[in-house]
Formats: sequence, structure tokens, C-alpha cells
Amino acid sequence: MKFLIVGDVCGRPGREAFRKYVPELKKEHNIDVVVVNGENIAGGRGISRKTLDEIYRAGADIVTSGNHIWDQKEIVSFIDDEPFLIRPANYPEGAPGKGYCIYPFKAKNIGVINVSGRTFMPPMDCPFQKVDEILKEIKNQCDIILVDIHAEATSEKIAMGFYLDGKVTCVVGTHTHVQTADNRILPKGTAYISDLGMVGPYNSSLGINVNNAIDKFITCRPVRFEMAEGPNIFSAVVLELAEDNSVKSFERILFNEE
Amino acid sequence: MKFLIVGDVCGRPGREAFRKYVPELKKEHNIDVVVVNGENIAGGRGISRKTLDEIYRAGADIVTSGNHIWDQKEIVSFIDDEPFLIRPANYPEGAPGKGYCIYPFKAKNIGVINVSGRTFMPPMDCPFQKVDEILKEIKNQCDIILVDIHAEATSEKIAMGFYLDGKVTCVVGTHTHVQTADNRILPKGTAYISDLGMVGPYNSSLGINVNNAIDKFITCRPVRFEMAEGPNIFSAVVLELAEDNSVKSFERILFNEE
Amino acid sequence: MKFLIVGDVCGRPGREAFRKYVPELKKEHNIDVVVVNGENIAGGRGISRKTLDEIYRAGADIVTSGNHIWDQKEIVSFIDDEPFLIRPANYPEGAPGKGYCIYPFKAKNIGVINVSGRTFMPPMDCPFQKVDEILKEIKNQCDIILVDIHAEATSEKIAMGFYLDGKVTCVVGTHTHVQTADNRILPKGTAYISDLGMVGPYNSSLGINVNNAIDKFITCRPVRFEMAEGPNIFSAVVLELAEDNSVKSFERILFNEE
Amino acid sequence: MKFLIVGDVCGRPGREAFRKYVPELKKEHNIDVVVVNGENIAGGRGISRKTLDEIYRAGADIVTSGNHIWDQKEIVSFIDDEPFLIRPANYPEGAPGKGYCIYPFKAKNIGVINVSGRTFMPPMDCPFQKVDEILKEIKNQCDIILVDIHAEATSEKIAMGFYLDGKVTCVVGTHTHVQTADNRILPKGTAYISDLGMVGPYNSSLGINVNNAIDKFITCRPVRFEMAEGPNIFSAVVLELAEDNSVKSFERILFNEE
Ligand SMILES: [Fe+2]
Ligand SMILES: [Fe+2]
Ligand SMILES: [Fe+2]
Ligand SMILES: [Fe+2]
Ligand SMILES: [Fe+2]
Ligand SMILES: [Fe+2]
Ligand SMILES: [Fe+2]
Ligand SMILES: [Fe+2]
Repeated sequence: MKFLIVGDVCGRPGREAFRKYVPELKKEHNIDVVVVNGENIAGGRGISRKTLDEIYRAGADIVTSGNHIWDQKEIVSFIDDEPFLIRPANYPEGAPGKGYCIYPFKAKNIGVINVSGRTFMPPMDCPFQKVDEILKEIKNQCDIILVDIHAEATSEKIAMGFYLDGKVTCVVGTHTHVQTADNRILPKGTAYISDLGMVGPYNSSLGINVNNAIDKFITCRPVRFEMAEGPNIFSAVVLELAEDNSVKSFERILFNEE
Repeated sequence: MKFLIVGDVCGRPGREAFRKYVPELKKEHNIDVVVVNGENIAGGRGISRKTLDEIYRAGADIVTSGNHIWDQKEIVSFIDDEPFLIRPANYPEGAPGKGYCIYPFKAKNIGVINVSGRTFMPPMDCPFQKVDEILKEIKNQCDIILVDIHAEATSEKIAMGFYLDGKVTCVVGTHTHVQTADNRILPKGTAYISDLGMVGPYNSSLGINVNNAIDKFITCRPVRFEMAEGPNIFSAVVLELAEDNSVKSFERILFNEE
Repeated sequence: MKFLIVGDVCGRPGREAFRKYVPELKKEHNIDVVVVNGENIAGGRGISRKTLDEIYRAGADIVTSGNHIWDQKEIVSFIDDEPFLIRPANYPEGAPGKGYCIYPFKAKNIGVINVSGRTFMPPMDCPFQKVDEILKEIKNQCDIILVDIHAEATSEKIAMGFYLDGKVTCVVGTHTHVQTADNRILPKGTAYISDLGMVGPYNSSLGINVNNAIDKFITCRPVRFEMAEGPNIFSAVVLELAEDNSVKSFERILFNEE
Repeated sequence: MKFLIVGDVCGRPGREAFRKYVPELKKEHNIDVVVVNGENIAGGRGISRKTLDEIYRAGADIVTSGNHIWDQKEIVSFIDDEPFLIRPANYPEGAPGKGYCIYPFKAKNIGVINVSGRTFMPPMDCPFQKVDEILKEIKNQCDIILVDIHAEATSEKIAMGFYLDGKVTCVVGTHTHVQTADNRILPKGTAYISDLGMVGPYNSSLGINVNNAIDKFITCRPVRFEMAEGPNIFSAVVLELAEDNSVKSFERILFNEE
């Protein structure tokens, strides 16, 4: 069984690249299920009804997210009705939406969990405690479990990877928008990568016009951020599982249109 | 002309891997000059006389650093006498040591500049302003200029890369200890990578024992950090320049002993 | 009934001032119970057996704390045996010690709760959720409830004050070591102050030698912090309750030896 | 000679309180010059043409500010033409506006300097270096020098106070919106207070509706902040100087309409 797990898709350019490459990759790699981090699909900030539908039509099966999930106000009007759209599970109780989902595929149940880190990020409930709680609840129902840890610090993501090693199938990091080269299989069998990277403008700072980003750092004043344009980068991993659901391979995909 | 630029070397395990791989790589790739980030060579924290000598003997020509530079108190006793050991240039005036050096190699002068980012890091002078100042001073004397931006946030590192694109030969990021897969040549010819990654224990969180790291995140209390043991990872790039000092290739090196 | 609630006591100078002023104040104000924040009593960092005993002998009945609670390693050897020494309740489950205590005084039960803020502080469990949990557990047993919110940001402390207004007797802030002038009774009757201030050297930065503090800000390098010397400041509040345990008065005490 | 120095004025309620109390206080205390922090006068965020004019008409002579200075975009259209409106001096070179001004009053020149702290605040140039630079430039032209350090951490404000002790007339802190009770005269004669506090709604979190603030801390999601309503608080200091411009007295003013 094969998964394509795609990093943060940024705005219109990112959605275009997603629409272009995902169908091709599904064929080429015989992908069964597509997971994608959608926190930036609507103009780089959040998820709208329209952009979510677009991403589903283009082949997404499960959509994870992160700190930008609330940026488009309309999200709260539909997040509870979307069975396979999840947000970080460690928002306090009462947050709209849910932090994990179980996606049935053929005879298998695939659990997907989304948590957020806390280092260099706003306060939230503990992602380690929260993942434990969810695992207790779902592990018996699931054949495969994937975790998206949306976090800034490599130390926290790696700690999460090792913490879940042997307990889940795969842990992928998101949020930094730069793919890391550390895809590997941890000692107890869990596939791990610190960051999937992004899908969006290649000549940009995390999807943003590079001059806007430079201006902000140089002036220390607020700068209006606009999405960058031009050729795109597409960042993802292909996770292949054996019959017994153990990890057979875990390869990075990263190409740019330049 | 060819450079081997090596990421943060962590403690004894990191130094062992450095001693083992650098001589081999120098031969294999016909390396002319070796640059390495040494901020963690002494037990993971700072630089001692002994460990610095060891790293030089093993083939380092120029040693850059970062926020851990002051961790071993003895550094201040020798940093001013070391022509090719540099620390972030954007420490305020009066800091021991220097933020750049000019390394003569055959008929060429190689400028190396070290700056620190400020996002999710302690306050310092502006790295963008500081790099401008240094470039004004040295660009006419240098044939080649390399920059090590020691920083946490991908946004800041990428902004620095584009800011210096066309003005310097190469910009490498350090500090996160995880190699990124975004090595590339920017539109105006500067080689760029967000993070070189580290040299040190493969099964670790940034060099630290993984259980210590997990404990810290789970307990939210102080935890004594110990270096991890076991097989190592070695992370670096090879930068190849043409006769006119333009970038010919910029490849990642990443292997582990497992 | 009358409480003396004393801010962060800093090191030896702070303990001396505590020993000198608390007995006097108890007499002068007919104080029934003394609460004090002890996180800095041992050399400015943490709580040792010896310094805790000293503070008890000098008149402390209940000792609250904060982020420095773990600084002296020996704390874990006795914190569980101290019925009236508490640490922030929002450390994750499993932390040594406890986050609240119930102190019996004459016919009354006095609940004291300690929580830590999270803004500009390390990640922890949510202090608002945690206080709710504890209140559910103890409010029926307690006649009076005091809360020490150990936090940096005025916004978070004030939010906690209003959140608990009408549910507890008194909310005091600690941690910034500077007394605020906003002692008041909130609309539903809870006494509130953003920060009690400290007990320790008057000419200091939070108890620390002022030149050390200045050096750190100017050099951006690590500086060895030493306690300041000289005349002390003593910061506290006197909380007076009516027969029905409602707040009758809530006055600041702040004097210095200069 | 007497100064009234007023803390952060928040939105319409704050401006109303300013208009009401400043004229009264000027008479009552024979105030010569009024300084006020205006960073929140326009709806709690920034400074508009209209609100600045209103504050001047109500008696402000010099307006300092802080991190919110850029919130109303129109500020850049007039900040350079306002001789006595200043913003933190440690924004990088090229920022609109200026970081200090010299206000002539009778035969005296009054220098006013505004700097921002960096602890728990966005990166900027060093406020200590910057104040030194400005002092070198203006101290010979000025009879009296006032400094507004707009900062979060008490440690940084106090360090600035002692750093400038004996070099300037008075250092006041702003930004936390809560008045501190530590007004004093430092050993070498400089008047100091860690925070002036704010002018605006008494039952609020820094001027904001208290339920909005609580919601934000409890939900960890973005919350739309609205200004609070109701009775106001007015926070300021009166600085009285002797003939030789030394500090004669430095008293807090803090009253609320409830
Ligand atoms: Fe993202
Ligand atoms: Fe994100
Ligand atoms: Fe490092
Ligand atoms: Fe570092
Ligand atoms: Fe303290
Ligand atoms: Fe504290
Ligand atoms: Fe303000
Ligand atoms: Fe502010």
C-alpha cells in the first residue's frame, strides 16, 4: 500500500502545482491514498470552502493543517462536517473540528493524527500527552497510523518521532516549508521526516514574495505579505507499506519547475 | 576550486566522525578548503582549545560558530588569536573574536562571514545590516565570499539567501542540526542551503540523548542533557566553483553509519 | 481574618528582610496567616531544605513558587513531604510536589493554588483549565481560596483575575519582581493585584547585581549573575476578610530600607 | 519646573479620560509640560491624524509611542512633519519619523528619547547603544532629558534605568499598561518608574474587553479584540525639577472613575 504525503500547499500557485503533479504522481507511483497539509491553501492563510473542494477534486483524501487553520473565518462553518479535514489535536477542548480521523481504505483503517508543537509557537495543550490519549482511543481500530506534527523546532519534531517510534506507522513534520533531508526509518520501524516542505512558488520565502520577507527583517516594521509568483516547487514523500503494514520504503519527492 | 562545508559538529562523537570522513572526502572530491561549524565541538556546548586543535588537525581550515560559542569559558582566552575561527558578526561591538576572516588560498582570497539570525533567538544586532557593512569592507579584497547564517527560522535564512544573491558566492544555514534538501543556485548565482545539518549521533535529538529530549518536552521541567552515543551522521555540502569563481555545482553530502 | 501575602523573596538578602519585617508586620497588622512566594530563596534560584526551614521559622505558613522551583536539585527529595509548599499546578501530571494545598486555620479551610502563565514563558498545561479542575475539587471544602499566578504578561494575569472573579477570594501575581499599583477589588468581589513585587536588594535588577544585568543586555553574551547587596525592599499585600470571608480590604505594603 | 508624563492612552475611552483629566491636573499641579505615550490612541492600535490632533488639543506637548506606532497606515504620511511625535529610536535607519525630539520651553531645552526593549519583543537595534548615540548628539543642547523605554520585561527596563542613572533626568517605562509602584530616585539622581500604566477602561485587560482576552487564553485561537467600555483609569507621574534641573519629586498619579 502506498501513500503520497504532501507538504504545506501555498495559495493559488500551490494549488495549481498540486493539481498538476498529484494526478501524475498517483499514476506513476500507484498511490492509494493522498494526505496533504492544507493550512495555507487559501491565499497562503487558512482554508476556504472553495479551495478545500479544489484540493479534494485534485486528489487529496485527507487534509491536515496547523496554526493557520483559523485564518479564514468561514472554516468554522464547515470544519465539523468534513470527515477527513483535521486540525492540531492539541487545541483545547471545545475547538471546532477534530484532531484526528480514521479513513477507511479497502479492508484497512488508516488513522491520521495532527498535532502542533509548542516550541517557538503559541501555547497549546501538550502534543505528547494528546497523542497518547488519541492512540489509546484509536490504535485498536487502526491498521496504519500517520502523524503530522506541525512545528517549528527540529528538537521537538525529532523528540516526537522517537517518542512514537514503534507506536505509529509514520511521523511527518510540517510548518517550516523547507523539506528536510532526514527521511528515515527509526529504530523501531516508524518512518520519519522533520519537514515535508511546501508546494508553491520556488523563488519565495515560504511562499511569500521574497522582497516582502527581506523588507520585514530589515525594517522591523509590519510589511504587507503577498504571495510570490513564478515556477513552483513540489515537496512530498512516498510511503510504501508491506502487507503487514510495516514500512517498506519512505522516499522524498522534491522537484521544481525551473 | 572545491569547498567542503560541514554542519555543526557535536561533541566527541561528532569529532570522531569528522576525523574519519573529512580526510576521505577531501581525497575523493579533491577538496581545496574545508569550512566547518564548530559551536558544539566541546561536549555539545562551545569550543575548547583541545577540541579546536583536534578539528584543525583533522582538516578544518576555517571554523564558524553560533550561539553556543561562549559556552566554554576558555574561548575568550584564545578566540582573538585564532585567525580562522569566527563567531556571529552581529554580536555588539566589543565582543571577543571576529565575525569574518579572509583565508588566502593559492592566489585567491576567500572571505568567510558568520552571522546569527534573530527570529526565535536572543536579541542581537541586525544580521542584514552587519553583512552589508562587512561586504563593503571586504568585497574588493575577496575573490570568493561564503556566509554561514546560524539561525532557527527558515524564513530568515531564505531572506538572507535572496538578500545576498549575486553579492556573495554561497550562503549556508546552520543551527537546526537537520540537513535541508533545498540546496540550489539562486537566480543571480549564489549557492544556497537552509541548513547543512550536523555531524554526530544518528539516533539523537540534535546530538542529545533522545530520552533526555523527550523528557524535557513531556515534563516541562529542566532535564540534564547528555550527548547521545552510537552510529554517526555526517552532513555537509560540496561547493564547486568555476575558474571565474562562479558556482559550478552545489551538492549535499549526507550519510550515516547505520 | 488577615493575610500577609509576600512577593518573591530573593536569596540571603531577601531572607534577612523577610526575617526582619514579617514578625513586625504580623504584630502590627494582626496577621493570621502568611503566604510567601519562595521560588528564589536559595541564592536567587530555587528552594533548598535549609532556606525553606528558615522561611518557615521566620513566619511563613504557606510557600508558593514558580518557574525557578526546580533550580536546586534537592527540592525533589522533600517537596512531596511538605504539606504547605506548592508549585505551579499546571506542570504536567507526574511532576513532584503539588499545585495547591488546604491550610486549616481555626475553623476555616484556606485553599491556596499556584499556577504559571504561559505567555513569554515555557510551554505548560493551560493554567485556566487547571484552575477550573482544582476549584471543582476543592471549592466545597474551602472557606477561602487564594491564587498565586506566576506569570510575565500583564494581559494573562489580568485575564486570570477576571476569570476567577467571584470564584475565589484573591488572585495575586508574582514573577516580575516589581510591585504593581493595581491592587483592587474586582467587580464580583475578588481581590486582585498583577504583581506583589519582591523582597531583596533595592538597588538591583530583580535581585541581581545591576551591572551584571546591564552587561547581559549590552553584550548579548552570557553573564554570570550574582545577587546584589545593600539595602532591601519588602513587597507584600495585606488582605483583610470579613466574617463571611468576603474581602474587606486589600492594601499594598512596600517599603525600602534606604 | 513640572512635567505630567502619562501612560499609554487606549482608544476613544482613553482619549476621553485624557481630555477630562489632563486640563484639571495641569491646573492643580501647575504642570509646565505634558508628555504622553500615544501608541494606542486610535482604537487601541496606532495613531491617526484625527486622534493625534485630539490629544494635542487636550494638552499633550510631546507624544511618545511604541510597537503599535505603525498600526494605522496613515501614520507614515504625517509622522515626519510632527516635531514632537516620536517613535522608538532603535528602529533601523530609514524608518519614518524620529526617535527623539528637543522641545523648547521658556529658556530650557527638553530632550525626549523613546526606545523599545527587545526582551519578549520583536528584534530591533540595541536600545542601550542607541540611547548612547543620541545622548552623545544631544546632551550638550539639552537641560533636561526624559526617556520612555517601551518594553515588556522589568529586568530590561530596570537595567536601562540604572544604565542611564545620572546621565538623564528621568526614565519611564511603558507598554505593560499596568502602573508599577516602584517610582523612585535612583542613586545618581535619575527619576525612574518601570511602567506608567495606561489611560482607558478600568475593567479591561490592557484596554481590551476582558472576555475577549480570556477567550484568547482559553481557546488558543485568534479572537477579535474589541475595546472595553465603562469607567476609566488614569495613570501618570508628576515629575518636579529643581532650579538646577535635578529631580525634586517624582510622584505617581493613579485614579479610577469607579
Ligand atoms: Fe504552513
Ligand atoms: Fe504553520
Ligand atoms: Fe549547533
Ligand atoms: Fe546554534
Ligand atoms: Fe521570582
Ligand atoms: Fe519566576
Ligand atoms: Fe500600549
Ligand atoms: Fe506597546
